[in-house]
Amino acid sequence: MLTYRRPVRFEDVDAAGIVFFARYLNLCHEAMEAFFAGLKGGYSHLIMQRHIGLPAVAAQIAYIAPLRYGDVALIDTGVSHIGKTSCTLVYRFRNEHNGAPVATIRHSCVVCVLSETIQKIAVPDDLRAIMEAHRTPDPFAATAV
Amino acid sequence: MLTYRRPVRFEDVDAAGIVFFARYLNLCHEAMEAFFAGLKGGYSHLIMQRHIGLPAVAAQIAYIAPLRYGDVALIDTGVSHIGKTSCTLVYRFRNEHNGAPVATIRHSCVVCVLSETIQKIAVPDDLRAIMEAHRTPDPFAATAV
Amino acid sequence: MLTYRRPVRFEDVDAAGIVFFARYLNLCHEAMEAFFAGLKGGYSHLIMQRHIGLPAVAAQIAYIAPLRYGDVALIDTGVSHIGKTSCTLVYRFRNEHNGAPVATIRHSCVVCVLSETIQKIAVPDDLRAIMEAHRTPDPFAATAV
Amino acid sequence: MLTYRRPVRFEDVDAAGIVFFARYLNLCHEAMEAFFAGLKGGYSHLIMQRHIGLPAVAAQIAYIAPLRYGDVALIDTGVSHIGKTSCTLVYRFRNEHNGAPVATIRHSCVVCVLSETIQKIAVPDDLRAIMEAHRTPDPFAATAV
Repeated sequence: MLTYRRPVRFEDVDAAGIVFFARYLNLCHEAMEAFFAGLKGGYSHLIMQRHIGLPAVAAQIAYIAPLRYGDVALIDTGVSHIGKTSCTLVYRFRNEHNGAPVATIRHSCVVCVLSETIQKIAVPDDLRAIMEAHRTPDPFAATAV
Repeated sequence: MLTYRRPVRFEDVDAAGIVFFARYLNLCHEAMEAFFAGLKGGYSHLIMQRHIGLPAVAAQIAYIAPLRYGDVALIDTGVSHIGKTSCTLVYRFRNEHNGAPVATIRHSCVVCVLSETIQKIAVPDDLRAIMEAHRTPDPFAATAV
Repeated sequence: MLTYRRPVRFEDVDAAGIVFFARYLNLCHEAMEAFFAGLKGGYSHLIMQRHIGLPAVAAQIAYIAPLRYGDVALIDTGVSHIGKTSCTLVYRFRNEHNGAPVATIRHSCVVCVLSETIQKIAVPDDLRAIMEAHRTPDPFAATAV
Repeated sequence: MLTYRRPVRFEDVDAAGIVFFARYLNLCHEAMEAFFAGLKGGYSHLIMQRHIGLPAVAAQIAYIAPLRYGDVALIDTGVSHIGKTSCTLVYRFRNEHNGAPVATIRHSCVVCVLSETIQKIAVPDDLRAIMEAHRTPDPFAATAV
């Protein structure tokens, strides 16, 4: 897995002083952009120049421990499934302070051309190569999802 | 279920012109605030005056169809499980234009006193009453999650 | 001026329990979408179908009193200047509870066609008509800005 | 001035593919957190442990050129005014690609103890020291604001 280091920022935390539950998927997307940084031109080039995107079809989140303002999240990112036109990313959040698990997230996508209509396409080779290099087990497999 | 009507706003959509996948949980939280509006002082009173919150322990999302800028989401909100110190909210997103399903989300919480430490407490009677009035089946039960 | 009523939501407030200073411009944009709701197809139609947008060129904010979770903002929206290809919107935030002023914001835009390049165009007649109907003085004029 | 380097992320850009005008103040706050990173425990310690915050009283923004997804912002941060209980931060955004100016922002704050009531206090010595070390002229002075 590739690790993305992300200090918790003021705008991530809510009135209770902990990272808002909806923010975790924003952090996953940041980790995903870092995960695919090795693409030519980076992930932004994929979206803006090649007009290829990865719309989500499903997500599952286990919140294990809160993150507070001042904490640093380490987000280990890998891929548990690569299909013909789809893939599943896995994010394991740890607290840098003590290494304790914070959250586990599974994020299933399809690969699409982004235009007026959204059309599935085969996973491009350069995306596939990055994903193949970072295989990880499905964290929710034991729960038979 | 209680229905929360929410026009898609400019800031909800991403560079592809569709609601960003992370925004759905923000919309769920808005729907939850509307769901608990019948509490004395509303949901904000629960948080700010009674210092009671509902931190998430798990979430599951099925993205079915995109929402675009200009669409209106109808979010039907109910409760599939009420425990001693926990509950599970269910949100079914539809597109107002044609009634077609957009997303289904299950959001499991614990009820806590918010202070330096976060302590589980029994579900207060007024919360329980609102939840009991809006029971709905678990949308992911068939998939044995 | 047209008034947009906006309850403060949980995600608007920061760890100090007050609306985050950056959120005010998000609320202005919501008020602007409401202000232009009378356009055929609404503001979203302007953006998505006519590909016309109003990129900001300047903004000025006076924060007068905090908004807390549970408060309701009343946002009075008007226009202090209409040029050939530009306009200036004014937002006056009040607290619904006591009517007290919360913030005053001036937001200067140009009218553009949104494409690969961003090109200024003359203010379309239907936009101009809405703006002409809601003239308001420049709130910062006295400070000679 | 201290420079904060910030790649534009997918969630920063709007349906027009450019950084949303409201996001600039979020980026300023990130730059401010970086600016005060030298405080013992960082800026988060100031907020969470010392319960001292810097609520905004005014902001002024000149948007000069758009930032697109894939761009990197360089945000030079300094201080144009230090009062007994107040300060004014200045942020100059440049595009890393060509060094061209993107935005200039002036952000005036008061220093407060954050509790049920918000009370102004004298600028603490450690904050003052960081600010004194990074003086910069008022970017809007020429416009007599």
